Amino acid sequence: MTNVGIIGLGLMGGSLSIALQERSDSYHIIGMDHNETHQQEALELGLVDKIVHSLDEISRCDIIILTIPVDGIIAVSKELKNLDEKCTVIDLGSTKAKISASIPASVRKHFVTAHPMTGTEKFGPKAAIGKLYENKIVVLCDMEKSGPHQQEVAKELFTQIGMKLVYMDAQEHDRHAAFISHMPHALSYSLANSVMKQEDASSIVALAGGGFRDMSRIAKSSPHMWEDIFRQNRSNLIEAIESFEVELKKCRHMVENGEWEALNKWMGEANRLHDIL
Amino acid sequence: MTNVGIIGLGLMGGSLSIALQERSDSYHIIGMDHNETHQQEALELGLVDKIVHSLDEISRCDIIILTIPVDGIIAVSKELKNLDEKCTVIDLGSTKAKISASIPASVRKHFVTAHPMTGTEKFGPKAAIGKLYENKIVVLCDMEKSGPHQQEVAKELFTQIGMKLVYMDAQEHDRHAAFISHMPHALSYSLANSVMKQEDASSIVALAGGGFRDMSRIAKSSPHMWEDIFRQNRSNLIEAIESFEVELKKCRHMVENGEWEALNKWMGEANRLHDIL
Repeated sequence: MTNVGIIGLGLMGGSLSIALQERSDSYHIIGMDHNETHQQEALELGLVDKIVHSLDEISRCDIIILTIPVDGIIAVSKELKNLDEKCTVIDLGSTKAKISASIPASVRKHFVTAHPMTGTEKFGPKAAIGKLYENKIVVLCDMEKSGPHQQEVAKELFTQIGMKLVYMDAQEHDRHAAFISHMPHALSYSLANSVMKQEDASSIVALAGGGFRDMSRIAKSSPHMWEDIFRQNRSNLIEAIESFEVELKKCRHMVENGEWEALNKWMGEANRLHDIL
Repeated sequence: MTNVGIIGLGLMGGSLSIALQERSDSYHIIGMDHNETHQQEALELGLVDKIVHSLDEISRCDIIILTIPVDGIIAVSKELKNLDEKCTVIDLGSTKAKISASIPASVRKHFVTAHPMTGTEKFGPKAAIGKLYENKIVVLCDMEKSGPHQQEVAKELFTQIGMKLVYMDAQEHDRHAAFISHMPHALSYSLANSVMKQEDASSIVALAGGGFRDMSRIAKSSPHMWEDIFRQNRSNLIEAIESFEVELKKCRHMVENGEWEALNKWMGEANRLHDIL
């Protein structure tokens, strides 16, 4: 049996557990979560075989998965002690540079810092779905800092649940993630708030079609989780927001000044995104 | 038989044709489109029984549907002559105030100005799907300007294809539509362009997960169609963009100044959108 300890039994941790159990009978999964309702739900949903309440038991696992907010990942990395030589700790945080740099040197080789490019706006054990990771990309960062055994374990695990592996420097990852994920979250939150601030918000929202629903979907995401991400990836996020602001301002100016031909061309340039997506 | 003439055989017109044909055998549908490929495709896909090349035949239909860009709707409204007393013209443009005000007085009572709150980023006859309108909202504007018969015909048609009817003043519609649809399109185009401008755009885009895909989806939309909409709804669009810019700037400042508690609260406010959506 492979003993797996998951800290954080929400969407990401719960879905990973389902995916592993669907692929193999050889996993024994224990879990930890500060939320008592989530502990109970995770047991009832079969996401874990057992709930534990201290890091001691987790520390004795073959594989430890950290699926908690990114500041929590750093905190836990400083508390993990007496890990077996072969123990592999995989964190699934959405930022990577600060985590990669903050893990204590004594346990750094145990760690594999990964970012699966998947998720939904939902959270908690009930949000867990087996196919969350299937055919999605996982970015593995600063792999040279992980031990050879740990590298193999992580690669095997992500391959087993159907993910495509991409390797990247943590700094580069964070810049990319700011554009492809973190800044879009800032936009979605801003969109939701700009509509909510209108006097007749509910009659506006009553008209929502698919476009608005899609664009405001990730504004449902957990503030606690995203506060941490915004803090850890602050400078890249600001750069990405500024780059977006330049484009939106350009759009607004073209509309204000009636530069319709230029606007049409600018929209056509945006269409080109979908040649590469 | 009810003779229906559809001008514009793209996503909206084509889908309407499928929906009508699915609901009843009593429709004879003729179509007009300036694009020869689309004419051919519409015939092959069975979206129309016949392609016509002048407004004369269209003008003799019982129901005329205009599913062309909003500037085109106004142009066609000025060319429709000799309509039968019972003829009903329904335009499906995404803006309503300028259209409602521009239709010549001589044919105004024939017109019902409607905006179905549905669509996809795709266009052309091949994009047509029968369920596009099902369970979606259609906003009927300035109905007091339409004849009693025309009001009934339009209500019956939209009800038949499964839509929920909402009545609104055209000015109010345009303000609402700016927030719920037009400004979000400006954001999606801006997002796509801000990413495309990055030096390593393709490696950024390679990491796209569901959030980015959803938020950039409508940036695939037709520049020709959206240029017209932005022009016709210019002042409301600018107001909506400005309102969004205020929120995004607030977000950026909180990140820049490390006001994490305020940021968390602001994200929580955005979450509340989904209590009403």
